[in-house]
Amino acid sequence: MTVARPSGRAPDALRPVRIERHYTRHAEGSVLVSFGDTRVLCTASVENRAPGFLRGKGEGWVTAEYGMLPRATNTRNDREAARGKQGGRTLEIQRLIGRSLRACVDRAALGERTITLDCDVLQADGGTRTAAITGAYVALVDAVNWLRKNGAIARDPIHGAIAAVSVGIFQGTPVLDLDYAEDAACDTDMNVVMNDGGGFIELQGTAEGHAFRRDELDAMSALAEKGIRELIALQRAALAE
Amino acid sequence: MTVARPSGRAPDALRPVRIERHYTRHAEGSVLVSFGDTRVLCTASVENRAPGFLRGKGEGWVTAEYGMLPRATNTRNDREAARGKQGGRTLEIQRLIGRSLRACVDRAALGERTITLDCDVLQADGGTRTAAITGAYVALVDAVNWLRKNGAIARDPIHGAIAAVSVGIFQGTPVLDLDYAEDAACDTDMNVVMNDGGGFIELQGTAEGHAFRRDELDAMSALAEKGIRELIALQRAALAE
Amino acid sequence: MTVARPSGRAPDALRPVRIERHYTRHAEGSVLVSFGDTRVLCTASVENRAPGFLRGKGEGWVTAEYGMLPRATNTRNDREAARGKQGGRTLEIQRLIGRSLRACVDRAALGERTITLDCDVLQADGGTRTAAITGAYVALVDAVNWLRKNGAIARDPIHGAIAAVSVGIFQGTPVLDLDYAEDAACDTDMNVVMNDGGGFIELQGTAEGHAFRRDELDAMSALAEKGIRELIALQRAALAE
Amino acid sequence: MTVARPSGRAPDALRPVRIERHYTRHAEGSVLVSFGDTRVLCTASVENRAPGFLRGKGEGWVTAEYGMLPRATNTRNDREAARGKQGGRTLEIQRLIGRSLRACVDRAALGERTITLDCDVLQADGGTRTAAITGAYVALVDAVNWLRKNGAIARDPIHGAIAAVSVGIFQGTPVLDLDYAEDAACDTDMNVVMNDGGGFIELQGTAEGHAFRRDELDAMSALAEKGIRELIALQRAALAE
Amino acid sequence: MTVARPSGRAPDALRPVRIERHYTRHAEGSVLVSFGDTRVLCTASVENRAPGFLRGKGEGWVTAEYGMLPRATNTRNDREAARGKQGGRTLEIQRLIGRSLRACVDRAALGERTITLDCDVLQADGGTRTAAITGAYVALVDAVNWLRKNGAIARDPIHGAIAAVSVGIFQGTPVLDLDYAEDAACDTDMNVVMNDGGGFIELQGTAEGHAFRRDELDAMSALAEKGIRELIALQRAALAE
Amino acid sequence: MTVARPSGRAPDALRPVRIERHYTRHAEGSVLVSFGDTRVLCTASVENRAPGFLRGKGEGWVTAEYGMLPRATNTRNDREAARGKQGGRTLEIQRLIGRSLRACVDRAALGERTITLDCDVLQADGGTRTAAITGAYVALVDAVNWLRKNGAIARDPIHGAIAAVSVGIFQGTPVLDLDYAEDAACDTDMNVVMNDGGGFIELQGTAEGHAFRRDELDAMSALAEKGIRELIALQRAALAE
Repeated sequence: MTVARPSGRAPDALRPVRIERHYTRHAEGSVLVSFGDTRVLCTASVENRAPGFLRGKGEGWVTAEYGMLPRATNTRNDREAARGKQGGRTLEIQRLIGRSLRACVDRAALGERTITLDCDVLQADGGTRTAAITGAYVALVDAVNWLRKNGAIARDPIHGAIAAVSVGIFQGTPVLDLDYAEDAACDTDMNVVMNDGGGFIELQGTAEGHAFRRDELDAMSALAEKGIRELIALQRAALAE
Repeated sequence: MTVARPSGRAPDALRPVRIERHYTRHAEGSVLVSFGDTRVLCTASVENRAPGFLRGKGEGWVTAEYGMLPRATNTRNDREAARGKQGGRTLEIQRLIGRSLRACVDRAALGERTITLDCDVLQADGGTRTAAITGAYVALVDAVNWLRKNGAIARDPIHGAIAAVSVGIFQGTPVLDLDYAEDAACDTDMNVVMNDGGGFIELQGTAEGHAFRRDELDAMSALAEKGIRELIALQRAALAE
Repeated sequence: MTVARPSGRAPDALRPVRIERHYTRHAEGSVLVSFGDTRVLCTASVENRAPGFLRGKGEGWVTAEYGMLPRATNTRNDREAARGKQGGRTLEIQRLIGRSLRACVDRAALGERTITLDCDVLQADGGTRTAAITGAYVALVDAVNWLRKNGAIARDPIHGAIAAVSVGIFQGTPVLDLDYAEDAACDTDMNVVMNDGGGFIELQGTAEGHAFRRDELDAMSALAEKGIRELIALQRAALAE
Repeated sequence: MTVARPSGRAPDALRPVRIERHYTRHAEGSVLVSFGDTRVLCTASVENRAPGFLRGKGEGWVTAEYGMLPRATNTRNDREAARGKQGGRTLEIQRLIGRSLRACVDRAALGERTITLDCDVLQADGGTRTAAITGAYVALVDAVNWLRKNGAIARDPIHGAIAAVSVGIFQGTPVLDLDYAEDAACDTDMNVVMNDGGGFIELQGTAEGHAFRRDELDAMSALAEKGIRELIALQRAALAE
Repeated sequence: MTVARPSGRAPDALRPVRIERHYTRHAEGSVLVSFGDTRVLCTASVENRAPGFLRGKGEGWVTAEYGMLPRATNTRNDREAARGKQGGRTLEIQRLIGRSLRACVDRAALGERTITLDCDVLQADGGTRTAAITGAYVALVDAVNWLRKNGAIARDPIHGAIAAVSVGIFQGTPVLDLDYAEDAACDTDMNVVMNDGGGFIELQGTAEGHAFRRDELDAMSALAEKGIRELIALQRAALAE
Repeated sequence: MTVARPSGRAPDALRPVRIERHYTRHAEGSVLVSFGDTRVLCTASVENRAPGFLRGKGEGWVTAEYGMLPRATNTRNDREAARGKQGGRTLEIQRLIGRSLRACVDRAALGERTITLDCDVLQADGGTRTAAITGAYVALVDAVNWLRKNGAIARDPIHGAIAAVSVGIFQGTPVLDLDYAEDAACDTDMNVVMNDGGGFIELQGTAEGHAFRRDELDAMSALAEKGIRELIALQRAALAE
């Protein structure tokens, strides 16, 4: 028996994923990533100095900022710049993106530089943070390649690939890559970040309805692993173009 | 003798202008407007209540917010949400957009509603505020038509069309629709908002280098009028699709 | 072979845990919880109205705020009230505490009330968020019992118990309830919130050094389950006094 | 046929203008300027260092801040310091004042100094920004003369004079120097900043009611030119005392 | 032996005090008070509703706000509106002014109204808070008389008069009404608020150098009493005009 | 005839005072001070650099911050960190604590260091600021002794002792050390800070009901002197342990 997902997808199917590089022209890396109707513009900006707490240590830094356009969602949200502060959800997500991408960067090889990954959601349909991580990785690679092409750094500071996907328990069935309709109705929602070696970088599961069991955790982890393998293949294909 | 514009355009030529409607799916009006490499996403959001100062007066309101993605420009700008406030330039521009579009709206016919025009710059190359006004007009019309189709309002609250363009004195010659290279180098920069009757809605001229004379003001006004006529034709064509 | 933990504890041993009820006298629930040298004051405050988004729906709300005294840690941190905003870490933790405790509350049975759990760290030595959740549960029960004793609510809105603990991989070995020395040196850090039925409420794992594998995730989950069983027994004992 | 202005003035008549130098004793330049009942205290403060973005370039800076006492107007406005931010109108005006006055300053001759023009409205009756620019010019000259008298700068960094006035279309007639009663009722309001050579520094016209035509723009510009000529004569007379 | 005060005044002499009523025209009470070179504009604004915490209790409120123009002092201070918050000194002073004036107001007789006293320092030379209280009292009386003349309130809510002065120990001698030169150099500085019955409303003494003794406290209190008697006579004379 | 104090104390009796040193383990000085049910945690943190305005002058600084846990009081107060600013009362108190303690410190002997006294109220029952000053003095001495033991400073920068107590007029009688029940009902409230030589450091009296007379001021001062003598003896005893 299979669950009827609102989108008609199989439980283990990703939404159509598109990774468009060079979407805007100023940034060293600029990627528009789409997970179905979720669209996030990820830019990577290189600055030739490390943040204060690393000054003089010969290491670089990778950090992220996240934003959502006020009408990316079904009803308009207040603009955070107008409200005068970023909300807790925004801060939580941008901390997650930054931590996740630092996991594939050799900061000594990067040298005293900062790469800032701006992930701005143009349209939201669930999974914006996982799309952001998946797209930001490609923007980061483009920015690093720009540095290498310019002779600014000698060896590649990127080791491996990073991608992310959400999984959940929807009507009792573990499903991959939740869209908004599923996210709003599911019992458990878990965001998983993994590398291309199949190791976990981050795993954040939340019981929305009833608590989830160990076997559900196992099933969701396995689904996430499958989805991330596919996402990493799509990242490679995009970078090969 | 003709001035050599960095873009190779004739002094009275607009950049290629593109107006894409329905760019995102949630907003009642959603337009991606491009003036050359300047790209602004304009969404119109309808809310069924008037702001506090109009409550109970039977009138609606049209307002605007403006933002620029951190890496829309050549070097990254701090994210206003992270800095905790909108800068003076941002506030000035969003006030201008709101005033300009209210000039074509019969607020009593709109009823106790608020339409918020969010103008977010994805990529900047000069003229972001004039592109925003030109695109926001189309998003506003789409939102109003959505209201009319739903039977929410009886008569059309929009009278006429509104568009905007910049003009300036570049190397002694009046030119139309400045891109960033011209904007940074010109002596005078003037933003003009007009309606389809050829009347001025807003006119803001600033001498960047030497002061400008009355005859230069006349020449710039004439250029703006020509450009806005063309922009209004493009708005009409887009709305006719 | 067993890992040498800085504290000399066995890998699966909690620190000494103390739960002191009625620590301060004004709050409806007031608990000082200690996980070793980590000490958190958790108060539960009852307010007889629901927050705005629930007004008139017959449901209550449980929310949390988290703070750390400036010198709770080894070097002084800026006071968030003086800096003018709560940091991302603070917001993330207080969102986690609130979500975790709402998982054991029947909000309809609570009625249109708000219970705010203030978790203030007096002294920090790792695991402040898990100590906070574990102590806040006891303060919440005390506050609910106060409501019941006063006849304000008819049936018990609390179902089950909630506790939390951290687990990690320290020098290759899964260990329970990390103190600061371990937290700073470990490869993976995972915070786990469970209920007394052994179900997961929240699970947040972060690879600090190398990525963690599925078998490590399993080992850490099992350790967490053991620790939380013990913590729930301690909560029960404290509530029985 | 002449329009009946609320004040009884001729269409091309300024209000009585008074420029009192040395109004307060601490500032290097201190001017109380009155345009009828509009009274603005303009002080010029000299600081012996350039702002960060000019450090080490051998150039100075002139900037402005604008404020309105809470009860300068007919109904009390919130104090911006208490609200925790300057409004959009305030920022817009102070940016205008700063730009306008920089137009008459040779920043290299000023040297690495900052002159800050604080324009604080004690009483408002329309035209506060134009009165502020006109008064701030005199305060600026006083501050520069103080620097020259002290031997701090060799050659005069001020070239020409700057003054400002508002013009508008009131009941169909172009009028000069609008007071509040006219400002609230007029169809078009235009603020004009010019130098003593008759060149435009800034020109900001807004259609409050119907859009304005080219001939109206011409008539308003001519009126502004007349008014500014008179204001510059009054500035000279004040500086000659 | 008498101390040589920088101003040449006798130890028990006030500076020349001037109280100008109706200084600005919009406020219900508007007073420019001068204590020597200290000049404070005090306006009283009447609003026909009580603040939230008094709504429906049949009582009014009197509150104060304090500000200092950036260049009221010898070196320019940052504008609090631009910095985005009021400093501790400002808040402390405006709380003192509000408390002091509420001491002479029968809030039930005032009815559900708020009177806000804005005290803005145009020029500072020591004693700005005591000048503010002394001037604000006159503005408050004018505002209350305006209410009575309009028939808004039946009986006078003002009982008695309130004035304030500073005293200190300067070079070992108790002196009255310190100017800035004395304030910066004195050992003890005490601000005293009294009513016309000779009772203390507020008394705030601070040892700037060595601690002060009981006999010094007595001498300062006596001086303050003398000064306040004179100030209350000046208030009466001003109100009698 | 003696007044019946709610607590049953004699008019000149302090509440039970407890001073617990080394309450938390990270700070150089850490004191939990109790005045009856008022409990304040005072920590002293040493930083090896002076604040900006003293850099390079060979002097140190002592400063204070004050906070109250949200549920230290009978009804919950908003968390200042969440509201985004410290209130006027908080700023006023922390300025008072800092000034008071600097009165016993030879800042040249301290050297270019900053000692920050964090005073956080765990439970409030009146007199939190006077308890804070009294406890912070002990924490300051402990921090200075830590510096001396480590050989960081040669001679003792502390001269004398500082303590504080409140006094008031309760039902016509001068009483010592007001608890909350008295504070809320008394006519006059005065906070007094003195040194061990019997000199006044700060004296802040406020008439809550009727104005207070000179003889009442005298009686309150005498009571304060007695209370502070006792508090200084308790400080000495605690430091001798």
